[in-house]
Amino acid sequence: MPKGGRFCPFCPGNESKTPPEILAFRTSGGPNESGWLLRVVPNKFPALRVEGDLNRQGEGLYDRMNGVGAHELIIETPEHLVTQGDLSEKRIEDIFWACRDRMLDLRKDHRLRHILLFKNHGEAAGSSIEHTHSQLIALPVIPKRVQEELDGCRRYFEFKERCIYCDITRQELETGSRVVLETDHFLVFSPYAPRFPFETWIIPRRHFSHFEDTEAAVIQNLAWVQRIMLRKMDKVLEHPPYNWMVHSAPVQEGPLAHYHWHIEVIPRLTKVAGFEWGSGFYINPTPPEESAKFLREAGLG
Amino acid sequence: MPKGGRFCPFCPGNESKTPPEILAFRTSGGPNESGWLLRVVPNKFPALRVEGDLNRQGEGLYDRMNGVGAHELIIETPEHLVTQGDLSEKRIEDIFWACRDRMLDLRKDHRLRHILLFKNHGEAAGSSIEHTHSQLIALPVIPKRVQEELDGCRRYFEFKERCIYCDITRQELETGSRVVLETDHFLVFSPYAPRFPFETWIIPRRHFSHFEDTEAAVIQNLAWVQRIMLRKMDKVLEHPPYNWMVHSAPVQEGPLAHYHWHIEVIPRLTKVAGFEWGSGFYINPTPPEESAKFLREAGLG
Repeated sequence: MPKGGRFCPFCPGNESKTPPEILAFRTSGGPNESGWLLRVVPNKFPALRVEGDLNRQGEGLYDRMNGVGAHELIIETPEHLVTQGDLSEKRIEDIFWACRDRMLDLRKDHRLRHILLFKNHGEAAGSSIEHTHSQLIALPVIPKRVQEELDGCRRYFEFKERCIYCDITRQELETGSRVVLETDHFLVFSPYAPRFPFETWIIPRRHFSHFEDTEAAVIQNLAWVQRIMLRKMDKVLEHPPYNWMVHSAPVQEGPLAHYHWHIEVIPRLTKVAGFEWGSGFYINPTPPEESAKFLREAGLG
Repeated sequence: MPKGGRFCPFCPGNESKTPPEILAFRTSGGPNESGWLLRVVPNKFPALRVEGDLNRQGEGLYDRMNGVGAHELIIETPEHLVTQGDLSEKRIEDIFWACRDRMLDLRKDHRLRHILLFKNHGEAAGSSIEHTHSQLIALPVIPKRVQEELDGCRRYFEFKERCIYCDITRQELETGSRVVLETDHFLVFSPYAPRFPFETWIIPRRHFSHFEDTEAAVIQNLAWVQRIMLRKMDKVLEHPPYNWMVHSAPVQEGPLAHYHWHIEVIPRLTKVAGFEWGSGFYINPTPPEESAKFLREAGLG
């Protein structure tokens, strides 16, 4: 229960306060009853809706289309926990399983071209409900930022015949100074020239373009890695607001040799200001070697 | 003087607390003495410095270069005013004259390829000093966001043989529903599909690619327009934090038929969250027709 007896629509017993669930992992109870460990529900105030046609049209020189898509919330635990890093490894694993299931289901709708998974933690990171939850938005277009990344990766591949993220992973492991931790399946590191202080990326060591194609052993390891990474960040930065986003290939595409899914974590420590909005460049006072060292050396004992 | 007797490095008498001035408009006194109406000083904590070589080099697959450039602050008035809209029209005109002078001077350094003018107002918009000031950053590269805009404008021009901003201006004046105000020289409007609630653009009606080439009569009118626009925003949104950015063509280029300078004003009312960082798309709950109507109808008594 939230402190001070405040109402939480995501706590057990309040299932009727969200739209009916799309998916749940349960130990008992039927749909929209208590007894769940994780619930996926449509956002009550969705950015996009599944119903209707795209109805693409011009308006003079502008273009418009309807907001066809899906906006779902993954309620990560029945406990009123505020911090994803406080979840058990199994709870975190279930988040990724739920996301994977939802992506595999949503991609059957061929209108939906890209699916974004992300989390907003804390008010400064855009979260309005404190009970820990992640989000999924399925879009009828490839978003600008994703298209830029895909184009950049494809140009690199055409030039080198190698995946740029595989090359980055190799170089970061060799250099070592920006590495936070490594496992058999993942590398966690502060990227070269990061936009933000303590920006951290989690990248699978084996090449896969689509998050939803990840194998069970890799998902299990991801849960361990994500939990340790978040706990280190919470320790070093004293529970900062943050966003994480899964970068994954467009869902209607087959496996891509030039793209490599990964997670980007951004603690929200600095303000984005006029220079950043005007330039698309970011002023970051913290070198990645320094943030990686802090995170690497943070004991969780 | 600031409230509560706090120290302000931008108030008269504290000239020695900033690096020596580069430019000042004065009624009395010598350099770095009191008697000024506006001062331009280097940022004490600059993002870039004029000294040194670019020294472009690779670091494995990454690229690096030195931060050669300039970072200057325009202290807009000797009074400890916090709000740009509270300045007189003449003070605002002087800001634009000072920016223009600095741009014409800095572009003589051929290493500097782009100059950004912007203002951060309020802590949520990234401002750390409350005494009203604008900023200028000169860069040795064309920033990502600027290059995207230039490329988009060039592609449109190649297709249509018309400037896209001239076309937007014409369509907005015809449609009317997104217009905030118009003068002989400027159109102020809420752009179609704005990223942010109450995002507002100020665009000169005559085609010029470079802000620094603007004529005296146009600069004078801009001061009037900018002041009214800010006062309307302060009234409707109750003194919000905001950023404005001048979008202007790269300084080493000659006049461009496909690019058109303008100012973008973003009140900081919503948080940028995981969806926005992951997609480059923005969820905006406020239709531009609605924000334009509020601003258009706001009387200034």
